[in-house]
Amino acid sequence: MVATGATPRFPSIPGQNVDGIYCLRNVVDAIHIKNFIRQRNATRAVLVGAGLISLEMCEAFRRLGLETTVVYRKDLPMRRLGEDFARQILTEIQSNGVNFMGDTDVQGFESRESGTIIVNTSNGALESDLVVLGLGVVPEVSLASEAGIDLGPTGAIAVNEYMHTNFPFIYAAGDCCESFHRISRKPVYAPLGDIANKQGRIAGTNIGGQKAVFPGIVGSMCFKVFNLEVASTGLTLEEAKKVGFQADSFTIQGVSKAHSYPNSRELRIRLVADTEAGRFLGAQSVGGDGVVSRINALAVALTGGLSLEELAYVDLAYAPPFSGAWDPIHIAAQQLLK
Amino acid sequence: MVATGATPRFPSIPGQNVDGIYCLRNVVDAIHIKNFIRQRNATRAVLVGAGLISLEMCEAFRRLGLETTVVYRKDLPMRRLGEDFARQILTEIQSNGVNFMGDTDVQGFESRESGTIIVNTSNGALESDLVVLGLGVVPEVSLASEAGIDLGPTGAIAVNEYMHTNFPFIYAAGDCCESFHRISRKPVYAPLGDIANKQGRIAGTNIGGQKAVFPGIVGSMCFKVFNLEVASTGLTLEEAKKVGFQADSFTIQGVSKAHSYPNSRELRIRLVADTEAGRFLGAQSVGGDGVVSRINALAVALTGGLSLEELAYVDLAYAPPFSGAWDPIHIAAQQLLK
Repeated sequence: MVATGATPRFPSIPGQNVDGIYCLRNVVDAIHIKNFIRQRNATRAVLVGAGLISLEMCEAFRRLGLETTVVYRKDLPMRRLGEDFARQILTEIQSNGVNFMGDTDVQGFESRESGTIIVNTSNGALESDLVVLGLGVVPEVSLASEAGIDLGPTGAIAVNEYMHTNFPFIYAAGDCCESFHRISRKPVYAPLGDIANKQGRIAGTNIGGQKAVFPGIVGSMCFKVFNLEVASTGLTLEEAKKVGFQADSFTIQGVSKAHSYPNSRELRIRLVADTEAGRFLGAQSVGGDGVVSRINALAVALTGGLSLEELAYVDLAYAPPFSGAWDPIHIAAQQLLK
Repeated sequence: MVATGATPRFPSIPGQNVDGIYCLRNVVDAIHIKNFIRQRNATRAVLVGAGLISLEMCEAFRRLGLETTVVYRKDLPMRRLGEDFARQILTEIQSNGVNFMGDTDVQGFESRESGTIIVNTSNGALESDLVVLGLGVVPEVSLASEAGIDLGPTGAIAVNEYMHTNFPFIYAAGDCCESFHRISRKPVYAPLGDIANKQGRIAGTNIGGQKAVFPGIVGSMCFKVFNLEVASTGLTLEEAKKVGFQADSFTIQGVSKAHSYPNSRELRIRLVADTEAGRFLGAQSVGGDGVVSRINALAVALTGGLSLEELAYVDLAYAPPFSGAWDPIHIAAQQLLK
């Protein structure tokens, strides 16, 4: 059983070994970062990258009162979700006091006598007490690779639906291996905790002599950043086109509860579908509340192969504290059907 | 187009016409009740029945500071959801100061000079300033019936998937007509606002010359009572057995977010399935948070015909503010598979 996980991407940047530069991969890393902040009375943090880890760390650092800067090589965080949603996420972190430096490459780190770290970037130098690199992870496949186990197109270990590698008695599971994406019908690399858990259980069941199949993923993810919920499932419009679907999308702005209900918050949802075939392909959503709830319903819709027509009239539980009589899912599906 | 709606069930009880006895069916009723409370300085309310309306009104009355009593002919509210969940709902209303009189029949009302209403019950007399009857609704079918339009087995207007009655050019929609239940494969009477909206749109589309099909319902419902979310979709264990399924159920107690996350609240979820066939049939859930979200995902699962096996590994969006790596849905499905 190969369960070697993943390691943080750690590109070779001059000075990357100076004191106070961290990755966040596990609880031990978190404790180190927390202790460092306390011991050094850190007041400034730089996050490199703008993925899940960086965005979640923004919130943690701001809560600790740190001056927080995100340095990112692209123009917007979470661009995959579309420019509109990416801008909303940017606005959310900025309005919570995070500095965002987009289109910026980190070129090197220097350490000062005082402990201050100089972060040299393509847009000038920053001073910080602490740097966290959130540049994603790469599958840890060196052992598997040396042993002759096949890697897939993503660079992670190739497995079949039983979590079986190309070797008769060798299984793999978790962040070191690929997952089958049920919508694109392609192997993908999706190093997420819930998927690792599922794969581990399937591999263990098969190793134990029973037969279990991992049905693959539909690409669901979510996170919370300050007061915003962000979630997505299936394919984005861009991804759907790339895979070869005749894809279209429609984005609506709705509310999380009934309009008349107190504390109803704005949420935006984009549905992606092959409108010719009436096939639902994916959804992205950003908002104050009820975002993950909708995306989970839509993740199940992708799993069950619901058509756009079925989504437009799906029987969701309705009461004003939870939605309008027409849920944003219905409204978006009906708009996309037009 | 017949859209005559429903009327509150108003059984003939002696004295039912005394001043201060209301039904709640629409905004005008709500305004009358509110004005009455204000004008009479009402301090005591009796709710007859323990359905959605009564339980929601409990909360509204307690917020207004009224001494509130629910009188119900059965022993527990919402017994359909199972005794355990019914008890939890009872505890929730009682701990919010509502008096619950179960196994109690209302036998008549009397009015005193002072304006006080005497509610005579099988368990003695109560004094109140206001009574709200929440005894459900009956479809308003007198016009349709006189015109010779067929009623279905539920007593509501029978319609096909186009919302078409047995008359060539007569359609019906909303609380006056039946819905097709996709799991029991039977017509049911489900007078809920979201269903009425959908049926209306389907009928209108067909009347307008396009072709639209109402795909039926899976029996989703939800409500909030004080700090408890309650929701259900598909069949209960009892209903499933009655329909003829080899049904079994499993109830788990989980939490709405990751265990480690602040403000995670308890939720209980019961899955019902034909375990022989691996077919998922329904779910009920009660808890502080995340209940409706799970039930909506499960409503879509019923619509898509997901098997219990598929539910056990369905790719939901995971992050600690929203669930554990194994969602209560996964855990319940896996337990039921054992």
